[in-house]
Amino acid sequence: MLAAARTAFAERGYDGASIRAIATAAGVDPALVHHYFGTKDALFLAAVQLPADPDDFLPEVLAAPPDQLGAAVVRTVLRVWDGPARPGILALVRSAVNHEWSARLLREFVLARIIRRVVGTLDMPVAEREARGALVASQVMGLVMARYVLRLEPLASARPDDVVAAVAPTLQRYLTGEVDLSGRRD
Amino acid sequence: MLAAARTAFAERGYDGASIRAIATAAGVDPALVHHYFGTKDALFLAAVQLPADPDDFLPEVLAAPPDQLGAAVVRTVLRVWDGPARPGILALVRSAVNHEWSARLLREFVLARIIRRVVGTLDMPVAEREARGALVASQVMGLVMARYVLRLEPLASARPDDVVAAVAPTLQRYLTGEVDLSGRRD
Repeated sequence: MLAAARTAFAERGYDGASIRAIATAAGVDPALVHHYFGTKDALFLAAVQLPADPDDFLPEVLAAPPDQLGAAVVRTVLRVWDGPARPGILALVRSAVNHEWSARLLREFVLARIIRRVVGTLDMPVAEREARGALVASQVMGLVMARYVLRLEPLASARPDDVVAAVAPTLQRYLTGEVDLSGRRD
Repeated sequence: MLAAARTAFAERGYDGASIRAIATAAGVDPALVHHYFGTKDALFLAAVQLPADPDDFLPEVLAAPPDQLGAAVVRTVLRVWDGPARPGILALVRSAVNHEWSARLLREFVLARIIRRVVGTLDMPVAEREARGALVASQVMGLVMARYVLRLEPLASARPDDVVAAVAPTLQRYLTGEVDLSGRRD
């Protein structure tokens, strides 16, 4: 059921995927889906959170020495996105672009469960960590959009090692180089 | 009618915005919208293409010297997104994330009418220009997602000058620094 839900949410988005169609694809009765997951929201959360549990890939990133953190982040992003979790994460991204509640969900999830843990390895004030984390998130999200959603060539077909070589210096500078986002606009 | 369409597409996405609702918001009869634009597709194109005509902002970017190109790109992206065109562009981004045809439309538009003209100012082989253009697009799209869609702080509230200072070196390296995406994965 979760596999069918992930495929349906990824292909048709949150609004377009119906519990009825998901049940049909999974070969079960819609009542069974309702019984197990209750609402479509709960099914969505179960579908999108399971395929890419940060606990599965973060330890490798967190184990990297500070001057290798940028490369470790890119390498792990590519490994997760090139793996079986892609449809589920894509569903989350699609939903986040369409629904304010889902954007909030994704932002909180990415901030609390990924970014803060990565920049938490750096010895600096919290505000500076948050700024660096937001910049890292911007390049990671853009890489994902360009390579996996819009499929911009040659980035979409490039070897992971070449993508790491091209993008890791950006993340490394955002993490440990000179950046300052402390000013706020009026 | 176009202003109402832009607002409707931005707030509700391509599928959620109806010609009837757009006509009501514009204070006209739906038949008039059909008369002027024909299909919802045509209305969408008219709505999203007009607010940010590359001819309005590209000359400024193209006039920058090669070593200032990265800063010129970020500055212009922020100016366009902080201006009245935002709802229209946001509608295009939302649609692109949801519809393969729309992703193709956005990709072709961004590639042909923006990226190729920016990297066209650089004296290098076409394949290298395309690779650099894709990397630039990845950081620009990610910046837009982080600052305007997910509103990640402190990036969302940062002063434009600080964002330029933080992100321009990334784009400058992608444009004129050492990067190589020529290898393809198997």
